[in-house]
Amino acid sequence: MRHKIEKTWEQRDMESVFHPFTDFGTLNSKGPVVLTHGDGIRVFDVHGKSYIDANSGLWNNVAGFNHQGIIDALCQQARKFPGYHSFFGRVADTTVALAEKLVELSPFSDGKVYFTNSGSEANDSVVKMLWMLHRRNGQSQRRKIITRLNAYHGVTVATASMTGKAYNAEFGLPLPGFLQTDCPHYWRFGRDGESELEFSQRLARNLEELIIKEGADTIAGMFAEPVQGAGGVIPPSEGYFEEIRPILRKYKIPLIADEVICGFGRTGTMWGSVKYNMEPDAIVASKCITAGYFPMGAVILGKELSEELIRVSEEAEEFPHGFTAGGNPLGCAVALKSIEVIENEGLMENVVKVSPHFMQRLRKLGEHKYAGEARGVGLMGAVEIVADKKTKQALPSELQISERIANKALEKGLICRPLGAAIVLGPAFIITEKEIDEIFDILEETMVEVFSDVGL
Amino acid sequence: MRHKIEKTWEQRDMESVFHPFTDFGTLNSKGPVVLTHGDGIRVFDVHGKSYIDANSGLWNNVAGFNHQGIIDALCQQARKFPGYHSFFGRVADTTVALAEKLVELSPFSDGKVYFTNSGSEANDSVVKMLWMLHRRNGQSQRRKIITRLNAYHGVTVATASMTGKAYNAEFGLPLPGFLQTDCPHYWRFGRDGESELEFSQRLARNLEELIIKEGADTIAGMFAEPVQGAGGVIPPSEGYFEEIRPILRKYKIPLIADEVICGFGRTGTMWGSVKYNMEPDAIVASKCITAGYFPMGAVILGKELSEELIRVSEEAEEFPHGFTAGGNPLGCAVALKSIEVIENEGLMENVVKVSPHFMQRLRKLGEHKYAGEARGVGLMGAVEIVADKKTKQALPSELQISERIANKALEKGLICRPLGAAIVLGPAFIITEKEIDEIFDILEETMVEVFSDVGL
Repeated sequence: MRHKIEKTWEQRDMESVFHPFTDFGTLNSKGPVVLTHGDGIRVFDVHGKSYIDANSGLWNNVAGFNHQGIIDALCQQARKFPGYHSFFGRVADTTVALAEKLVELSPFSDGKVYFTNSGSEANDSVVKMLWMLHRRNGQSQRRKIITRLNAYHGVTVATASMTGKAYNAEFGLPLPGFLQTDCPHYWRFGRDGESELEFSQRLARNLEELIIKEGADTIAGMFAEPVQGAGGVIPPSEGYFEEIRPILRKYKIPLIADEVICGFGRTGTMWGSVKYNMEPDAIVASKCITAGYFPMGAVILGKELSEELIRVSEEAEEFPHGFTAGGNPLGCAVALKSIEVIENEGLMENVVKVSPHFMQRLRKLGEHKYAGEARGVGLMGAVEIVADKKTKQALPSELQISERIANKALEKGLICRPLGAAIVLGPAFIITEKEIDEIFDILEETMVEVFSDVGL
Repeated sequence: MRHKIEKTWEQRDMESVFHPFTDFGTLNSKGPVVLTHGDGIRVFDVHGKSYIDANSGLWNNVAGFNHQGIIDALCQQARKFPGYHSFFGRVADTTVALAEKLVELSPFSDGKVYFTNSGSEANDSVVKMLWMLHRRNGQSQRRKIITRLNAYHGVTVATASMTGKAYNAEFGLPLPGFLQTDCPHYWRFGRDGESELEFSQRLARNLEELIIKEGADTIAGMFAEPVQGAGGVIPPSEGYFEEIRPILRKYKIPLIADEVICGFGRTGTMWGSVKYNMEPDAIVASKCITAGYFPMGAVILGKELSEELIRVSEEAEEFPHGFTAGGNPLGCAVALKSIEVIENEGLMENVVKVSPHFMQRLRKLGEHKYAGEARGVGLMGAVEIVADKKTKQALPSELQISERIANKALEKGLICRPLGAAIVLGPAFIITEKEIDEIFDILEETMVEVFSDVGL
C-alpha cells in the first residue's frame, strides 16, 4: 500500500502514468505538469499556476475549458441516458439525431455516419470499409493505401502506417502496402524557379506515376488532411487538390478527407475539404466534434460510398466491425451541443474575425532572424526555426530548439507545441485579439531569451 | 433539407446511421430499436416499450442504466475539468489518481498505466509497445503475435487480426504474422476418452510446437482473455493457463491478459487472470472500468514490462504513440467512481451471491432437447444450440436459430445476444434473483415457440 498523503502529485504521476508523446528527458528533469481545472483558454496546475493554452488542448478544446452550455448538455444527457451501444440494430435517439446532423452539415447530398471513439479508430475503420468493399466487388487485391509525407492519421498499427512521420520506424512501421506520396509544402519542397502552381502540378504527376507504377487496381484509397496538422500546419500548395482530384477519379481511387483537425471551424469554414475543393468521398471527423469534452470519432460517408457499403454489408449479412462505445449517447449529446455552440454562439465567426490578427502576429514572428517560415490559416499556425533563412537549413538537432522554446514558454505560463523544428499554435475558437497578443508577446520574449541562452 | 418532423425515429435511423455488427436482414425487415433511456437493468424505446437487457449493453453497463452516484461523479468532474490530454508531460490530477488506483487494484507489485479510449486501442497499443521494445532490444524480427481461435481482441486492423473469428476474412484479415493457436473449449474440441486436463496438456504441447516451428525469437507476445467472451463465453479448460504459462516463460514470450470483459468483477473476482492463474505481464482493461458511462481503455503494465518500456522510451526520447482523449479526466472520474461502486456498493458481492442461481437456471436451459452445452462463470453464460446433443452437430445455418431466438425474445421485451449458434447472457452486476428468473422464464418460453415455429 502506497502512502499517498506524503507524496506530491508530480511523484504520484511519475510512479503511475506512462505518458504518450512526451520527451522523457524533459519529463525526468522538470517533472510533469499536473492540472486541476481550466477557465476559458487557461488551465491551472496543482500549485495554482495558470497557463494560457495556445493549443486548445490538442486542437480540440475550442470552446474553452469550462463552457457551461456544453457541461449542462452533458449532465442533462447523463441524467437521461448515459450509455448505450449501436450494435444489433439498437441505438439511442440522441445518436440518431447526431448522425442526421452530421450528414446535414456535410458537403454530401446524402450519406451515413459510422461512429467510433477517436480519429485513429475512424481512419482505421475506413481502411477496413475499403478493403471489404473492394473484396466484395471482386477486387481483393485492391489493398494499398496512399497517404503523404508528414501526414498524421492516427496511432493504431494501421493508421500509424498511414502517418508519414519518421518516429514510426520505432515500431517497424509502416506495414507493407502503405504508400507515401509527396507533401504539398511549397516553401520546403518547391524547386528554384518553380511556381507554386507548377509545384502542385509536379506533385500531381508524381502521384499519377506512383499509381501507375503500383497498379491502379491495387490501390484501395487515398487519405489526406485538408491542412496537414501534426505534420507542422501545412496548408496545401496552390491548386493542389484541384490537380490531384481528377487523377484519383480517373483511376477510381476513393479520396478520404481526414478532417480530425480541420473539421468544425479550425480553418474558418466548417470543413477544410470544402475550403480547398477536395471533393472527398468520405470525411473523418473527431476532436472539435465534442469540443474536447468527450472521446469521439465519426466517419461521414458520402452518398455513393455509403450506398456501396450498405450493399456489400447486406450481402455479407452484416458489417462485422464496431466499437463498444461508438455512438455513445452521452458523447452524441455533447457533440450536438458543441456543434451548436460553434455554429450559433459566434465561434466560427470569431475564428474568421480574429484570424487576420493571429496571422499578422504570426508573420511578424516569422521576421525573426531564425524564423524560416510563418504559415497557417484560420486559427492554426506554425513558425519554422532555421539556421539560415535563405538556405532554410535547420539548426543542429542537438539544440532541441523548439523543445527549449516550449519549455521556457511554459515557465512563463504559455503552452505552445514544439513539432520538429517548428512551434505550432492552435488556440481555442473563443480567443480574443487581446489574448492573441498575450500569446505572441510571451513567445517573442521567449525566443529572444532562448536564442541568447544557446549563444545565437 | 430533410423534413425531420414527419419522419419516425426508425426512418431517421435507417437514413443516417451505419450500424456496427448488425444483421441487415433483420434490420431491413424489422427496423431498428431506438432507445431513449434506461432504469436499472431495463431500457426503453421511443414507443415506451421496455426491455430487460440481459447483456448489460455490451457487457459494460454493470451498474444499471441510471446509477445516480456515477452520474453525479461525472457531472461533478465536468464542472471541475471536463477535458485534457496527457501528452507532453501534462496530465489532469484525476488521471493520476485513476492510474494509481488501477496499479493498486492490479495483481502487480508495481507498474504503470497507459490510457486509451477503448479495448481495441489498448490491445493495438500493446502490440506497438512490444514491437518497439523488441526492436530497441536488438530483436526487430520479434513481431509475431499469438492469439487463439475464437479470441476477441478488438476491431482495428491489428486487433481484428488478433480476433480469431471467421468474419475477418471479409477484410482480408488477419494480416501476416498474426498466429492462431487452439481454443481451450473442452466440450467442443476435447477428444473421445481425453480428460479435461489431458486436453489442456495437449493444447500446451501444440502451443510449444507452434512456437518452435515459427521460431521463439520471432514471437512478440501472446494475448488471451481469461474467459473468451465474444467467442461464446468459453472459460478455460481445467489447468489450461497453468499448463501454458511455463512454456511462454521458457521462450520469454510476454503474456497479455485481455480483461476487457472479465475485468472488474464479471467472473466474481476483480480479475479473471487472477482467478485462472494466468500471471500476465500486462492487463488490458476497458468496458466495466467506467460501467459503460464513458469510452475508456487502459493498459496496466506490470513492473518488469513497465520498466523496460520506460527505458526504451527514454532511449528513443519519447514513446511516440498516444490518443488525444486517452486519460481524459472526465472518463477518469467516472472510472474512479465506477470502481468504487463495484468494490464498495456490493456489486462484486452480488455477482458472487446471485451467480449460483444464474448458473442453475442456465444449466436448466441446457437440458432443452436442442441445447448442446450450457456454460459460464460468474455472470456470463451461454447456451449452445445443436441439432443433436450427442454428436454436437449444429442446426443448418440457414435456420439462423440463435438470431430467431433473439428476435422473438426482443418482441417479448428481452434483449439477449445471438453469437454463432449460441445465446449469450451477461447481465448487470446489480441484477436480482427475481430478475434472473424473469430472463430465463422469457427465454424458455421463447425457445419453445421458436423450435415449434421452425418445425422442430
